[in-house]
Order: sequence, then structure tokens, then C-alpha cells
Amino acid sequence: MGEIKATNITWHEGHVTRDEREKLLRQKGATLWFTGLSGSGKSTIAFTLEHALVQRGHLAYVLDGDNIRHGLNKNLGFSAADREENIRRIGEVAKLFADCGIITMTSFISPYRKDRDTVRELHAAGKLTFIEIHVNTPIATCEQRDPKGLYKKARAGQLKNFTGIDDPYEAPLHPELIIDATGTSPQEATVLILQYLEEKELVRSY
Amino acid sequence: MGEIKATNITWHEGHVTRDEREKLLRQKGATLWFTGLSGSGKSTIAFTLEHALVQRGHLAYVLDGDNIRHGLNKNLGFSAADREENIRRIGEVAKLFADCGIITMTSFISPYRKDRDTVRELHAAGKLTFIEIHVNTPIATCEQRDPKGLYKKARAGQLKNFTGIDDPYEAPLHPELIIDATGTSPQEATVLILQYLEEKELVRSY
Repeated sequence: MGEIKATNITWHEGHVTRDEREKLLRQKGATLWFTGLSGSGKSTIAFTLEHALVQRGHLAYVLDGDNIRHGLNKNLGFSAADREENIRRIGEVAKLFADCGIITMTSFISPYRKDRDTVRELHAAGKLTFIEIHVNTPIATCEQRDPKGLYKKARAGQLKNFTGIDDPYEAPLHPELIIDATGTSPQEATVLILQYLEEKELVRSY
Repeated sequence: MGEIKATNITWHEGHVTRDEREKLLRQKGATLWFTGLSGSGKSTIAFTLEHALVQRGHLAYVLDGDNIRHGLNKNLGFSAADREENIRRIGEVAKLFADCGIITMTSFISPYRKDRDTVRELHAAGKLTFIEIHVNTPIATCEQRDPKGLYKKARAGQLKNFTGIDDPYEAPLHPELIIDATGTSPQEATVLILQYLEEKELVRSY
């Protein structure tokens, strides 16, 4: 090994701890679980927050339909069992990201309390921070926005088991944060969540 | 928003790019896919490398049996279909980690060429770096080590479809790196891989 250009390495046994990665990143890993109706504003808030965090030098990542439904969960449909498995896998991946020290955001309707609570327990078992953020924009507003035209399709009977129309949304009983995106802009929501993260000392204060 | 302590945020639309996260981390996201027989030394090398990377200020993470088999893939068995799905999910998660800018290591036997090539293509489609590292320690050495007593069980017929005994290991045809852990210590292997990462400008040089 004498001629190899790799000096000053101190060799360690075993795994790098979460604490070591968090020191490197100067932040704490956590999962911010956004839940709410289609069109409630979850993704817009998550991506606005992601920008604000990265601008402050924090590593953040959003798991959403785009990178999950077409990838990890592309072999799942919309049956009850598949919807449960969808949230279970997202929860497991969020846990891995949080364990890596990343401020991880998930943006999925995740309508069932039981499924969300399972993910919460999963994080608790790993001593990882889980922050449930209920974006509780009223359905009338969501339906008026209807950014993907899904409510229209659901009302026309072209989409079955659509949350809020013919499938229930079970609101969180004890979410860490509630945001009504009717009266709160994504920027205002971002500031509220940043304040929360600062208070909990998950990110650096300014 | 006037009284809220959150100044100096410039608001952005859309997603944070991989490039922005990589600048923040001062590294490039990549997947280092370790493949080889049970007992070949994959995990020991991966965790030794993880320490060396973190010591140099790089964010690295290892996906292995401990955090995957008991979590994301706990509902998979060892049938042909489940083994394929096991690798597929790991590949998708590695891709997400690499996209987040992390130097991601996976440590699984992953015996089938087709499954590994699928993961390689998945990364290529996302313009993500995929580095296949074949830890090609001879089976005689692996069996002599037998750290988990699995070869003994397989020889006794207590484990079926055990890679190298009664199930094939398909060696990579064009791996980026080959390491024979018989004659190469984990530290030496780490130095070789670090050199490779430096040459490819995925990490900072020293």
C-alpha cells in the first residue's frame, strides 16, 4: 500500500453512526410526512421548503409520486392491499433517508390513519424524528383547483375510490403541524415549518 | 409574515436539482454495487470504505441485509420471483439515494447478471453513475471463512438454493472493479476504490 495515494486514513471497524453523518451535515435526519387531499398543496409546499433548506446549506429530499410511483412502487396498483403496501414502502425508504441524516419529505395523500401511524411507529422504533404535517385545505378548494383534473374525472365516475369523493380521508388526530393552504401561501407554510425545525433543533437557526 | 424570523430566503419554483445537492455536498451521487458470494467480504469492504469517505467529509450510506431485509423487503422470501424483486427494490432505492447526491453502497450477493444489469440500466436512464464491484473471493476461501455458518448448513442440505452450492453465481462480465478479498485487505480494497472515485471525480482528491 506504500505507493498508493491515500494517506491520513484512520481505519475504523463497524458502521458509521447516524450521529457522525448528522455532524457532517450539521443537521438532524427527520421525516416530514405531508398528508392531505389531492390538490391540497402538499407537493408545492414540500418543494418550496426543499429549496429553502438547500439554500441554507441543508440536505433535503422529496419523495413523491414522480420518483416513487414510476420506480420503487411501479408494480403496485390501487387495491386496498396495494395502497397499504405503497405507504409501507415509502415509510421504509423515508426511514433509510432519515437514518442517513437527510431532511426527508414525503408528499402522498396517504389517507388512512393506520398506515401513517405504522410509519410513525417505524420511525419511533429507530429513534428517528417523524413530523406529520396535515395540509388540511378544504375539499371545496382542492376541487376548485383540481390541478390534474382528477376531481372532475372522479365526479364523472371515471375514477373509482378517489379520496374525498368515494373513499375516505382520515385526518390525523395529533399531527405535529396543520397547514390550511387556502389561507397560507407555500412560502408562508415553508416559514412555519422552518420555524418548527429550528425550534426542534433539527436545522441550524438564523 | 413580517414578524416571522426567516429572512434572506429567495423563493424558487420547481425542484432542487441533483447538481445543486451535489454542489452542497461537494461530491457526486453514485451507486457502488458490491456483488459476490456469501463470505466474500463485500460488507466489510463497504463499511470500511464508508468510514474512510465520512472521515474525508463525504456523505456515504450502505444498504445491506440489516437495513433492507428487515425493513423494505421484509415481505419477500427466497423464491425466484422474490429474489428478483429484492434486487429490483434495492436498485430503485439506491437510485433515489444516488439522485440525492449520496455515495451509496449496496452489499448483496445479487447472483444474477440480468438483475444487476437491470439496475445498471435504471441508473443509466437517470444519468446516474453505477459502479459494479465484483468481490471475487474464491468459493473455497468463502467457505473456509463461513462467518455465518451458512455454507455448513447448505452442505448439510439445511439451506436450499444457496449461491455457489446449489444455485449459480453469475459473475459480472464487465464490472468497473474486481477485488479478490483473499489477497486484498478491506483497507487495501478501500484505497483502490477511493482511487477509482477520485479518478472519476466523484469525490475530492487528496
